Amino acid sequence: MRNNLATTKTIGIVGLGLIGGSLGLSFQKLGYRVLGLTHKPNTAIRARERGIANLVSTDQKILEECPVVILALPLSQLLKPESKLIDSLHPDAVITDVGSVKTPVLKIWEQLHPNFIASHPMAGKDLAGVDAGIDNLFHGKPWIATPNKRTNPKALEVVKGLAISLGCNWLTAEANAHDQAVALISHLPVLISAALLKTTNKINEEEILNLARNLASSGFADTTRVGGGNPELGLSMLKNNTSTILHFLSLYKQSLEIFEKSMISKDWELLEEELKQTNLIRPTFLKN
Amino acid sequence: MRNNLATTKTIGIVGLGLIGGSLGLSFQKLGYRVLGLTHKPNTAIRARERGIANLVSTDQKILEECPVVILALPLSQLLKPESKLIDSLHPDAVITDVGSVKTPVLKIWEQLHPNFIASHPMAGKDLAGVDAGIDNLFHGKPWIATPNKRTNPKALEVVKGLAISLGCNWLTAEANAHDQAVALISHLPVLISAALLKTTNKINEEEILNLARNLASSGFADTTRVGGGNPELGLSMLKNNTSTILHFLSLYKQSLEIFEKSMISKDWELLEEELKQTNLIRPTFLKN
Repeated sequence: MRNNLATTKTIGIVGLGLIGGSLGLSFQKLGYRVLGLTHKPNTAIRARERGIANLVSTDQKILEECPVVILALPLSQLLKPESKLIDSLHPDAVITDVGSVKTPVLKIWEQLHPNFIASHPMAGKDLAGVDAGIDNLFHGKPWIATPNKRTNPKALEVVKGLAISLGCNWLTAEANAHDQAVALISHLPVLISAALLKTTNKINEEEILNLARNLASSGFADTTRVGGGNPELGLSMLKNNTSTILHFLSLYKQSLEIFEKSMISKDWELLEEELKQTNLIRPTFLKN
Repeated sequence: MRNNLATTKTIGIVGLGLIGGSLGLSFQKLGYRVLGLTHKPNTAIRARERGIANLVSTDQKILEECPVVILALPLSQLLKPESKLIDSLHPDAVITDVGSVKTPVLKIWEQLHPNFIASHPMAGKDLAGVDAGIDNLFHGKPWIATPNKRTNPKALEVVKGLAISLGCNWLTAEANAHDQAVALISHLPVLISAALLKTTNKINEEEILNLARNLASSGFADTTRVGGGNPELGLSMLKNNTSTILHFLSLYKQSLEIFEKSMISKDWELLEEELKQTNLIRPTFLKN
Protein backbone atom coordinates (compact mmCIF):
# COMPACT_ATOMS: atom_id res chain seq x y z
CA MET A 1 0.00 0.00 0.00
CA ARG A 2 2.86 2.39 0.67
CA ASN A 3 5.43 3.68 -1.76
CA ASN A 4 9.05 4.05 -0.82
CA LEU A 5 10.10 7.34 0.72
CA ALA A 6 11.43 9.95 -1.67
CA THR A 7 15.19 10.34 -1.48
CA THR A 8 15.02 13.99 -2.48
CA LYS A 9 14.67 16.67 0.15
CA THR A 10 10.90 16.52 0.33
CA ILE A 11 8.70 17.95 3.09
CA GLY A 12 4.98 17.41 3.38
CA ILE A 13 3.01 20.19 5.06
CA VAL A 14 -0.52 19.55 6.24
CA GLY A 15 -2.50 22.77 6.62
CA LEU A 16 -1.58 25.89 4.65
CA GLY A 17 -2.53 28.71 7.02
CA LEU A 18 -0.16 31.22 8.63
CA ILE A 19 2.28 28.62 9.99
CA GLY A 20 2.01 25.97 7.25
CA GLY A 21 2.11 28.58 4.51
CA SER A 22 5.12 30.35 5.99
CA LEU A 23 6.97 27.04 6.38
CA GLY A 24 6.14 26.14 2.78
CA LEU A 25 7.55 29.40 1.45
CA SER A 26 10.67 29.22 3.65
CA PHE A 27 11.54 25.58 2.92
CA GLN A 28 11.17 26.08 -0.83
CA LYS A 29 13.64 28.97 -0.58
CA LEU A 30 16.08 26.59 1.12
CA GLY A 31 15.80 24.18 -1.83
CA TYR A 32 13.31 21.69 -0.39
CA ARG A 33 10.53 20.19 -2.45
CA VAL A 34 7.37 21.04 -0.55
CA LEU A 35 4.12 19.10 -0.92
CA GLY A 36 1.18 20.94 0.61
CA LEU A 37 -2.04 19.31 1.73
CA THR A 38 -5.29 21.09 2.50
CA HIS A 39 -8.80 19.70 2.63
CA LYS A 40 -10.36 22.90 1.31
CA PRO A 41 -10.42 23.21 -2.51
CA ASN A 42 -10.48 27.02 -2.35
CA THR A 43 -7.43 27.06 -0.12
CA ALA A 44 -5.68 24.75 -2.56
CA ILE A 45 -6.37 27.16 -5.44
CA ARG A 46 -5.09 30.17 -3.49
CA ALA A 47 -2.07 28.24 -2.16
CA ARG A 48 -1.14 27.35 -5.76
CA GLU A 49 -1.52 31.00 -6.83
CA ARG A 50 0.74 32.05 -3.98
CA GLY A 51 3.29 29.30 -4.64
CA ILE A 52 3.13 28.10 -1.05
CA ALA A 53 4.24 24.61 -2.09
CA ASN A 54 5.73 22.99 -5.19
CA LEU A 55 2.64 20.82 -5.30
CA VAL A 56 -0.66 21.55 -3.55
CA SER A 57 -3.25 18.83 -3.25
CA THR A 58 -6.44 17.95 -1.40
CA ASP A 59 -5.50 14.25 -1.57
CA GLN A 60 -3.59 12.95 1.45
CA LYS A 61 -1.87 10.38 -0.77
CA ILE A 62 0.78 13.01 -1.54
CA LEU A 63 2.12 12.42 1.99
CA GLU A 64 2.94 8.77 1.36
CA GLU A 65 6.32 9.52 -0.20
CA CYS A 66 7.29 12.33 2.23
CA PRO A 67 10.23 11.50 4.57
CA VAL A 68 9.18 14.48 6.75
CA VAL A 69 5.64 15.67 7.40
CA ILE A 70 4.79 18.81 9.36
CA LEU A 71 1.26 18.87 10.73
CA ALA A 72 0.47 22.59 10.67
CA LEU A 73 -3.08 22.02 11.80
CA PRO A 74 -5.23 23.70 14.44
CA LEU A 75 -5.04 21.89 17.79
CA SER A 76 -8.63 20.69 17.43
CA GLN A 77 -7.74 18.74 14.27
CA LEU A 78 -4.39 17.63 15.63
CA LEU A 79 -6.07 16.10 18.68
CA LYS A 80 -8.71 14.32 16.59
CA PRO A 81 -6.78 13.34 13.47
CA GLU A 82 -8.61 11.73 10.58
CA SER A 83 -7.70 8.07 10.06
CA LYS A 84 -6.96 8.68 6.38
CA LEU A 85 -4.36 11.26 7.41
CA ILE A 86 -2.72 8.80 9.81
CA ASP A 87 -2.82 6.05 7.18
CA SER A 88 -1.03 8.23 4.65
CA LEU A 89 2.04 8.75 6.86
CA HIS A 90 4.96 6.42 6.05
CA PRO A 91 6.10 4.47 9.14
CA ASP A 92 9.70 5.53 8.51
CA ALA A 93 8.85 9.21 8.01
CA VAL A 94 9.52 11.83 10.66
CA ILE A 95 6.32 13.55 11.77
CA THR A 96 6.14 16.80 13.71
CA ASP A 97 3.48 19.37 14.57
CA VAL A 98 3.31 23.08 15.39
CA GLY A 99 0.65 23.08 18.10
CA SER A 100 0.86 25.63 20.92
CA VAL A 101 0.07 23.05 23.65
CA LYS A 102 2.25 19.95 23.79
CA THR A 103 1.06 17.51 26.51
CA PRO A 104 -2.21 16.40 24.84
CA VAL A 105 -0.62 16.35 21.36
CA LEU A 106 2.26 14.18 22.49
CA LYS A 107 -0.07 11.84 24.39
CA ILE A 108 -2.13 11.13 21.28
CA TRP A 109 0.51 11.18 18.58
CA GLU A 110 3.13 9.05 20.29
CA GLN A 111 0.53 6.27 20.06
CA LEU A 112 -0.07 6.99 16.39
CA HIS A 113 3.42 7.20 14.93
CA PRO A 114 6.83 5.85 16.03
CA ASN A 115 8.75 8.92 14.80
CA PHE A 116 6.53 11.68 16.10
CA ILE A 117 8.25 14.77 17.47
CA ALA A 118 6.01 17.17 19.39
CA SER A 119 7.25 20.64 18.55
CA HIS A 120 6.26 24.29 18.50
CA PRO A 121 7.80 26.92 16.26
CA MET A 122 6.94 30.13 18.09
CA ALA A 123 6.00 32.88 15.72
CA GLY A 124 2.76 34.75 15.40
CA LYS A 125 1.06 37.52 13.51
CA ASP A 126 -2.40 39.07 13.64
CA LEU A 127 -3.43 37.37 10.44
CA ALA A 128 -4.55 33.82 9.70
CA GLY A 129 -5.37 31.76 6.63
CA VAL A 130 -3.80 30.92 3.31
CA ASP A 131 -3.00 34.57 2.56
CA ALA A 132 -1.19 35.11 5.87
CA GLY A 133 1.94 33.02 5.30
CA ILE A 134 5.18 34.93 4.75
CA ASP A 135 8.63 33.65 3.96
CA ASN A 136 10.69 34.96 6.89
CA LEU A 137 8.23 34.40 9.76
CA PHE A 138 10.51 32.08 11.73
CA HIS A 139 13.98 33.56 11.46
CA GLY A 140 15.39 34.30 14.92
CA LYS A 141 12.33 32.83 16.68
CA PRO A 142 12.32 29.91 19.17
CA TRP A 143 11.40 26.44 17.90
CA ILE A 144 10.93 24.16 20.87
CA ALA A 145 10.46 20.37 20.89
CA THR A 146 9.20 18.31 23.83
CA PRO A 147 10.70 14.81 23.58
CA ASN A 148 10.20 12.16 26.23
CA LYS A 149 11.76 8.77 26.98
CA ARG A 150 9.94 7.15 24.08
CA THR A 151 11.03 9.73 21.49
CA ASN A 152 13.24 8.53 18.65
CA PRO A 153 16.46 10.61 18.96
CA LYS A 154 17.16 10.36 15.21
CA ALA A 155 13.74 11.81 14.41
CA LEU A 156 14.42 14.60 16.91
CA GLU A 157 17.69 15.41 15.09
CA VAL A 158 15.82 15.69 11.78
CA VAL A 159 13.37 18.25 13.17
CA LYS A 160 16.20 20.12 14.89
CA GLY A 161 18.03 20.33 11.57
CA LEU A 162 14.98 21.79 9.87
CA ALA A 163 14.45 24.34 12.63
CA ILE A 164 18.07 25.45 12.52
CA SER A 165 18.02 25.68 8.73
CA LEU A 166 15.23 28.28 9.12
CA GLY A 167 17.34 30.29 11.55
CA CYS A 168 15.26 29.34 14.59
CA ASN A 169 16.62 29.10 18.14
CA TRP A 170 16.26 25.40 18.96
CA LEU A 171 15.20 24.37 22.46
CA THR A 172 13.88 21.24 24.10
CA ALA A 173 11.89 20.85 27.31
CA GLU A 174 9.42 18.49 28.90
CA ALA A 175 5.94 18.88 27.46
CA ASN A 176 4.55 19.90 30.84
CA ALA A 177 7.26 22.57 31.32
CA HIS A 178 6.55 23.92 27.82
CA ASP A 179 2.83 24.10 28.53
CA GLN A 180 3.41 25.99 31.76
CA ALA A 181 5.85 28.43 30.17
CA VAL A 182 3.56 29.22 27.23
CA ALA A 183 0.57 29.49 29.58
CA LEU A 184 2.44 32.35 31.22
CA ILE A 185 3.86 34.17 28.21
CA SER A 186 1.24 33.40 25.57
CA HIS A 187 -2.07 31.95 26.81
CA LEU A 188 -2.64 34.09 29.93
CA PRO A 189 -1.88 37.23 27.86
CA VAL A 190 -4.66 36.23 25.42
CA LEU A 191 -7.10 36.02 28.30
CA ILE A 192 -6.22 39.30 30.01
CA SER A 193 -6.03 41.12 26.69
CA ALA A 194 -9.41 39.78 25.54
CA ALA A 195 -10.94 40.79 28.88
CA LEU A 196 -9.80 44.38 28.24
CA LEU A 197 -11.63 44.41 24.91
CA LYS A 198 -14.70 42.90 26.53
CA THR A 199 -14.65 45.64 29.18
CA THR A 200 -15.31 48.25 26.51
CA ASN A 201 -18.58 46.43 25.85
CA LYS A 202 -19.67 47.01 29.42
CA ILE A 203 -19.63 50.79 29.10
CA ASN A 204 -22.96 52.34 28.23
CA GLU A 205 -22.03 55.99 27.65
CA GLU A 206 -21.75 56.25 23.88
CA GLU A 207 -19.97 59.62 24.14
CA ILE A 208 -17.15 58.13 26.21
CA LEU A 209 -16.82 55.13 23.92
CA ASN A 210 -16.67 57.28 20.80
CA LEU A 211 -14.03 59.49 22.36
CA ALA A 212 -12.09 56.40 23.45
CA ARG A 213 -12.31 55.05 19.89
CA ASN A 214 -10.84 58.31 18.59
CA LEU A 215 -8.07 58.46 21.17
CA ALA A 216 -6.98 54.80 21.23
CA SER A 217 -3.49 54.44 19.82
CA SER A 218 -0.33 52.37 20.26
CA GLY A 219 -0.78 51.52 23.96
CA PHE A 220 -4.29 50.17 23.45
CA ALA A 221 -3.27 48.51 20.19
CA ASP A 222 -0.40 46.65 21.84
CA THR A 223 -2.30 45.59 24.95
CA THR A 224 -5.25 44.23 22.95
CA ARG A 225 -3.37 42.60 20.06
CA VAL A 226 -3.35 39.00 21.28
CA GLY A 227 -6.84 39.21 22.82
CA GLY A 228 -8.34 40.56 19.59
CA GLY A 229 -6.61 37.97 17.42
CA ASN A 230 -7.79 34.77 15.72
CA PRO A 231 -10.66 33.38 17.90
CA GLU A 232 -10.05 29.76 16.84
CA LEU A 233 -6.40 29.95 17.89
CA GLY A 234 -7.25 31.63 21.20
CA LEU A 235 -9.92 29.06 21.97
CA SER A 236 -7.61 26.15 21.16
CA MET A 237 -5.05 27.45 23.68
CA LEU A 238 -7.57 28.08 26.45
CA LYS A 239 -9.32 24.76 25.84
CA ASN A 240 -6.23 22.56 25.79
CA ASN A 241 -4.12 24.07 28.55
CA THR A 242 -7.01 24.92 30.85
CA SER A 243 -5.82 23.90 34.31
CA THR A 244 -2.42 25.57 33.97
CA ILE A 245 -3.94 28.76 32.61
CA LEU A 246 -6.53 28.82 35.40
CA HIS A 247 -3.76 28.44 37.97
CA PHE A 248 -1.82 31.38 36.51
CA LEU A 249 -5.04 33.34 36.22
CA SER A 250 -5.52 32.98 39.98
CA LEU A 251 -2.01 34.39 40.51
CA TYR A 252 -2.81 37.16 38.04
CA LYS A 253 -5.96 38.10 39.96
CA GLN A 254 -3.88 38.31 43.14
CA SER A 255 -1.49 40.69 41.39
CA LEU A 256 -4.34 42.83 40.14
CA GLU A 257 -5.76 42.87 43.68
CA ILE A 258 -2.52 44.28 45.09
CA PHE A 259 -2.65 47.15 42.59
CA GLU A 260 -6.34 47.71 43.30
CA LYS A 261 -5.87 47.76 47.07
CA SER A 262 -2.97 50.17 46.87
CA MET A 263 -5.14 52.51 44.77
CA ILE A 264 -8.11 52.26 47.14
CA SER A 265 -5.90 52.93 50.16
CA LYS A 266 -3.95 55.58 48.21
CA ASP A 267 -0.72 53.81 49.08
CA TRP A 268 1.22 55.54 46.32
CA GLU A 269 4.59 54.48 47.69
CA LEU A 270 3.66 50.82 47.38
CA LEU A 271 2.21 51.35 43.92
CA GLU A 272 5.34 53.19 42.78
CA GLU A 273 7.47 50.35 44.14
CA GLU A 274 5.33 47.82 42.23
CA LEU A 275 5.64 49.76 38.97
CA LYS A 276 9.39 50.06 39.43
CA GLN A 277 9.49 46.28 39.80
CA THR A 278 7.42 45.58 36.68
CA ASN A 279 9.66 47.99 34.79
CA LEU A 280 12.64 45.83 35.83
CA ILE A 281 10.93 42.46 35.24
CA ARG A 282 10.00 43.08 31.61
CA PRO A 283 13.53 43.20 30.14
CA THR A 284 14.39 39.86 31.80
CA PHE A 285 11.78 38.29 29.48
CA LEU A 286 12.68 40.24 26.37
CA LYS A 287 16.44 40.08 26.18
CA ASN A 288 16.63 39.67 22.44
CA MET B 1 8.38 93.36 36.30
CA ARG B 2 7.35 91.78 33.00
CA ASN B 3 8.71 92.42 29.55
CA ASN B 4 6.49 92.70 26.52
CA LEU B 5 5.66 89.52 24.66
CA ALA B 6 7.94 88.64 21.78
CA THR B 7 6.32 89.31 18.41
CA THR B 8 8.31 86.55 16.75
CA LYS B 9 6.97 83.00 16.68
CA THR B 10 8.34 82.00 20.06
CA ILE B 11 7.29 79.00 22.13
CA GLY B 12 8.43 78.30 25.67
CA ILE B 13 8.60 74.65 26.68
CA VAL B 14 8.87 73.72 30.34
CA GLY B 15 10.28 70.23 30.81
CA LEU B 16 12.50 68.62 28.17
CA GLY B 17 11.64 64.91 28.47
CA LEU B 18 10.01 62.74 25.82
CA ILE B 19 7.08 65.09 25.16
CA GLY B 20 8.78 68.45 25.74
CA GLY B 21 11.86 67.39 23.82
CA SER B 22 9.84 66.07 20.88
CA LEU B 23 7.79 69.28 20.77
CA GLY B 24 10.99 71.35 20.86
CA LEU B 25 12.49 69.49 17.90
CA SER B 26 9.24 69.60 15.89
CA PHE B 27 8.45 73.29 16.45
CA GLN B 28 11.98 74.33 15.52
CA LYS B 29 11.59 72.42 12.27
CA LEU B 30 8.42 74.45 11.60
CA GLY B 31 10.40 77.68 12.04
CA TYR B 32 9.46 78.52 15.61
CA ARG B 33 11.96 79.90 18.08
CA VAL B 34 11.86 77.48 21.00
CA LEU B 35 12.98 78.42 24.51
CA GLY B 36 13.41 75.36 26.72
CA LEU B 37 13.31 75.39 30.51
CA THR B 38 14.51 72.62 32.80
CA HIS B 39 15.46 72.79 36.46
CA LYS B 40 18.16 70.15 36.08
CA PRO B 41 21.58 71.49 34.95
CA ASN B 42 22.57 68.09 33.44
CA THR B 43 19.38 67.97 31.42
CA ALA B 44 20.10 71.49 30.18
CA ILE B 45 23.56 70.43 28.98
CA ARG B 46 22.21 67.38 27.16
CA ALA B 47 19.27 69.33 25.71
CA ARG B 48 21.71 71.88 24.28
CA GLU B 49 23.85 69.11 22.79
CA ARG B 50 20.76 67.59 21.17
CA GLY B 51 19.48 70.97 19.93
CA ILE B 52 16.10 70.41 21.58
CA ALA B 53 15.53 74.18 21.78
CA ASN B 54 17.12 77.29 20.31
CA LEU B 55 17.86 78.35 23.86
CA VAL B 56 17.93 76.06 26.90
CA SER B 57 17.97 77.57 30.36
CA THR B 58 17.45 76.66 34.00
CA ASP B 59 16.14 80.18 34.69
CA GLN B 60 12.38 80.53 34.40
CA LYS B 61 12.82 84.19 33.37
CA ILE B 62 13.15 82.99 29.75
CA LEU B 63 9.39 82.38 29.83
CA GLU B 64 8.54 86.04 30.46
CA GLU B 65 8.69 86.98 26.79
CA CYS B 66 7.00 83.81 25.46
CA PRO B 67 3.53 84.34 23.90
CA VAL B 68 2.93 80.59 24.18
CA VAL B 69 4.18 78.30 26.95
CA ILE B 70 3.74 74.52 26.92
CA LEU B 71 4.04 72.91 30.33
CA ALA B 72 5.50 69.50 29.43
CA LEU B 73 5.83 68.52 33.08
CA PRO B 74 4.93 65.36 34.97
CA LEU B 75 1.45 65.56 36.49
CA SER B 76 2.91 65.74 40.01
CA GLN B 77 4.71 69.00 39.16
CA LEU B 78 1.82 70.34 37.11
CA LEU B 79 -0.55 69.90 40.04
CA LYS B 80 1.82 71.60 42.48
CA PRO B 81 3.43 74.28 40.34
CA GLU B 82 6.22 76.37 41.80
CA SER B 83 5.24 79.98 42.37
CA LYS B 84 8.30 81.22 40.47
CA LEU B 85 7.06 79.29 37.42
CA ILE B 86 3.61 80.87 37.69
CA ASP B 87 5.11 84.33 38.18
CA SER B 88 7.19 84.00 35.03
CA LEU B 89 4.16 83.49 32.76
CA HIS B 90 2.97 86.66 30.99
CA PRO B 91 -0.73 87.38 31.68
CA ASP B 92 -1.37 87.72 27.93
CA ALA B 93 0.46 84.50 27.04
CA VAL B 94 -1.35 81.32 26.09
CA ILE B 95 -0.48 78.47 28.46
CA THR B 96 -1.15 74.81 27.82
CA ASP B 97 -0.04 71.50 29.26
CA VAL B 98 0.40 67.90 28.10
CA GLY B 99 -0.85 65.99 31.15
CA SER B 100 -2.63 62.68 30.70
CA VAL B 101 -5.39 63.52 33.21
CA LYS B 102 -7.31 66.74 32.66
CA THR B 103 -9.86 67.37 35.46
CA PRO B 104 -7.38 68.12 38.28
CA VAL B 105 -5.06 70.07 35.97
CA LEU B 106 -7.87 72.27 34.68
CA LYS B 107 -9.20 72.85 38.22
CA ILE B 108 -5.86 74.21 39.42
CA TRP B 109 -4.62 76.03 36.35
CA GLU B 110 -7.80 77.87 35.44
CA GLN B 111 -7.31 79.66 38.78
CA LEU B 112 -3.68 80.41 37.98
CA HIS B 113 -3.82 81.81 34.47
CA PRO B 114 -6.58 83.48 32.38
CA ASN B 115 -5.43 81.86 29.11
CA PHE B 116 -4.83 78.32 30.27
CA ILE B 117 -5.83 75.54 27.87
CA ALA B 118 -5.88 72.05 29.34
CA SER B 119 -4.66 69.75 26.59
CA HIS B 120 -3.15 66.36 25.90
CA PRO B 121 -1.12 65.47 22.83
CA MET B 122 -1.43 61.68 22.76
CA ALA B 123 1.80 60.05 21.76
CA GLY B 124 3.97 57.69 23.70
CA LYS B 125 7.09 55.61 23.48
CA ASP B 126 8.85 53.24 25.86
CA LEU B 127 11.56 55.76 26.60
CA ALA B 128 11.65 58.80 28.83
CA GLY B 129 14.06 61.65 29.55
CA VAL B 130 16.03 64.22 27.62
CA ASP B 131 17.38 61.61 25.19
CA ALA B 132 13.93 60.25 24.30
CA GLY B 133 12.52 63.19 22.31
CA ILE B 134 12.20 62.69 18.56
CA ASP B 135 11.10 65.09 15.91
CA ASN B 136 8.07 63.30 14.39
CA LEU B 137 6.45 61.89 17.53
CA PHE B 138 3.15 63.70 17.07
CA HIS B 139 2.36 63.49 13.38
CA GLY B 140 -1.01 61.78 12.83
CA LYS B 141 -1.66 61.46 16.56
CA PRO B 142 -4.64 62.91 18.47
CA TRP B 143 -4.18 66.18 20.38
CA ILE B 144 -7.19 66.77 22.58
CA ALA B 145 -8.09 69.90 24.56
CA THR B 146 -10.69 70.08 27.32
CA PRO B 147 -12.09 73.62 27.42
CA ASN B 148 -14.95 74.65 29.69
CA LYS B 149 -17.22 77.71 29.94
CA ARG B 150 -14.44 79.83 31.40
CA THR B 151 -11.91 78.98 28.65
CA ASN B 152 -10.72 81.85 26.45
CA PRO B 153 -11.72 80.82 22.90
CA LYS B 154 -8.84 82.82 21.36
CA ALA B 155 -6.33 80.94 23.49
CA LEU B 156 -7.96 77.68 22.44
CA GLU B 157 -7.52 78.66 18.77
CA VAL B 158 -3.81 79.28 19.34
CA VAL B 159 -3.26 75.80 20.79
CA LYS B 160 -5.38 74.25 18.03
CA GLY B 161 -3.21 76.01 15.42
CA LEU B 162 -0.05 74.60 16.99
CA ALA B 163 -1.48 71.08 17.16
CA ILE B 164 -2.58 71.18 13.55
CA SER B 165 0.77 72.57 12.41
CA LEU B 166 2.35 69.38 13.87
CA GLY B 167 -0.07 67.22 11.86
CA CYS B 168 -2.09 66.16 14.91
CA ASN B 169 -5.78 65.25 14.83
CA TRP B 170 -7.41 68.01 16.89
CA LEU B 171 -10.28 67.12 19.22
CA THR B 172 -12.05 68.76 22.13
CA ALA B 173 -14.10 67.18 24.92
CA GLU B 174 -15.12 67.86 28.49
CA ALA B 175 -12.31 67.17 30.94
CA ASN B 176 -14.35 64.47 32.65
CA ALA B 177 -15.13 62.73 29.35
CA HIS B 178 -11.44 62.84 28.42
CA ASP B 179 -10.44 61.35 31.74
CA GLN B 180 -12.93 58.51 31.38
CA ALA B 181 -11.88 57.75 27.80
CA VAL B 182 -8.16 57.67 28.63
CA ALA B 183 -8.85 55.60 31.75
CA LEU B 184 -10.25 52.98 29.41
CA ILE B 185 -7.72 53.06 26.58
CA SER B 186 -4.58 54.10 28.41
CA HIS B 187 -4.67 53.90 32.23
CA LEU B 188 -6.51 50.58 32.70
CA PRO B 189 -4.15 48.94 30.16
CA VAL B 190 -1.17 50.05 32.29
CA LEU B 191 -2.70 48.34 35.31
CA ILE B 192 -3.61 45.04 33.65
CA SER B 193 -0.33 44.92 31.78
CA ALA B 194 1.71 45.60 34.94
CA ALA B 195 -0.25 42.89 36.78
CA LEU B 196 0.83 40.38 34.12
CA LEU B 197 4.49 41.24 34.74
CA LYS B 198 3.94 41.01 38.47
CA THR B 199 2.40 37.54 38.04
CA THR B 200 5.73 36.21 36.76
CA ASN B 201 7.16 37.13 40.17
CA LYS B 202 4.68 34.83 41.88
CA ILE B 203 6.00 31.70 40.16
CA ASN B 204 8.58 29.79 42.15
CA GLU B 205 9.71 27.14 39.65
CA GLU B 206 12.93 28.58 38.25
CA GLU B 207 12.92 26.07 35.36
CA ILE B 208 9.53 27.27 34.13
CA LEU B 209 10.53 30.91 34.47
CA ASN B 210 13.76 30.39 32.56
CA LEU B 211 11.94 28.60 29.79
CA ALA B 212 9.32 31.36 29.71
CA ARG B 213 12.11 33.95 29.47
CA ASN B 214 13.53 32.08 26.47
CA LEU B 215 10.18 31.66 24.73
CA ALA B 216 8.66 35.10 25.34
CA SER B 217 8.32 36.99 22.09
CA SER B 218 6.05 39.51 20.37
CA GLY B 219 2.79 38.57 22.14
CA PHE B 220 4.31 38.96 25.59
CA ALA B 221 6.24 42.04 24.50
CA ASP B 222 3.09 43.76 23.26
CA THR B 223 0.90 42.84 26.22
CA THR B 224 3.48 44.03 28.77
CA ARG B 225 4.73 47.17 27.01
CA VAL B 226 2.65 49.76 28.85
CA GLY B 227 2.83 47.95 32.20
CA GLY B 228 6.61 47.74 32.04
CA GLY B 229 7.04 51.37 31.00
CA ASN B 230 8.10 54.48 32.89
CA PRO B 231 7.00 53.95 36.55
CA GLU B 232 6.65 57.70 37.23
CA LEU B 233 4.27 58.14 34.29
CA GLY B 234 2.24 55.07 35.25
CA LEU B 235 1.96 56.22 38.86
CA SER B 236 0.87 59.71 37.84
CA MET B 237 -2.01 58.26 35.80
CA LEU B 238 -3.16 55.84 38.49
CA LYS B 239 -2.85 58.46 41.22
CA ASN B 240 -4.72 61.27 39.46
CA ASN B 241 -7.56 59.40 37.78
CA THR B 242 -8.08 56.88 40.55
CA SER B 243 -11.85 56.64 40.94
CA THR B 244 -12.51 56.31 37.20
CA ILE B 245 -9.80 53.69 36.81
CA LEU B 246 -11.12 51.73 39.81
CA HIS B 247 -14.59 51.79 38.28
CA PHE B 248 -13.32 50.40 34.97
CA LEU B 249 -11.16 47.91 36.85
CA SER B 250 -14.30 46.52 38.47
CA LEU B 251 -15.83 46.06 35.00
CA TYR B 252 -12.58 44.48 33.84
CA LYS B 253 -12.66 41.99 36.70
CA GLN B 254 -16.21 41.05 35.71
CA SER B 255 -15.03 40.40 32.15
CA LEU B 256 -12.16 38.27 33.37
CA GLU B 257 -14.61 36.36 35.58
CA ILE B 258 -16.78 35.47 32.60
CA PHE B 259 -13.77 34.00 30.79
CA GLU B 260 -12.69 32.17 33.95
CA LYS B 261 -16.12 30.70 34.58
CA SER B 262 -16.48 29.51 31.00
CA MET B 263 -13.11 27.76 31.31
CA ILE B 264 -13.99 26.16 34.65
CA SER B 265 -17.32 24.92 33.31
CA LYS B 266 -15.73 24.01 29.95
CA ASP B 267 -18.32 26.09 28.15
CA TRP B 268 -16.25 26.31 24.97
CA GLU B 269 -19.15 27.62 22.89
CA LEU B 270 -19.51 30.65 25.16
CA LEU B 271 -15.75 31.21 25.21
CA GLU B 272 -15.57 31.01 21.42
CA GLU B 273 -18.44 33.49 21.14
CA GLU B 274 -16.61 35.85 23.53
CA LEU B 275 -13.38 35.62 21.53
CA LYS B 276 -15.24 36.25 18.30
CA GLN B 277 -16.68 39.38 19.90
CA THR B 278 -13.31 40.69 21.10
CA ASN B 279 -11.94 40.04 17.62
CA LEU B 280 -14.68 42.31 16.24
CA ILE B 281 -14.39 44.97 18.97
CA ARG B 282 -10.70 45.68 18.48
CA PRO B 283 -10.88 47.21 14.98
CA THR B 284 -13.61 49.64 16.11
CA PHE B 285 -10.96 51.22 18.38
CA LEU B 286 -8.11 51.10 15.90
CA LYS B 287 -9.56 52.39 12.69
CA ASN B 288 -6.55 54.39 11.64
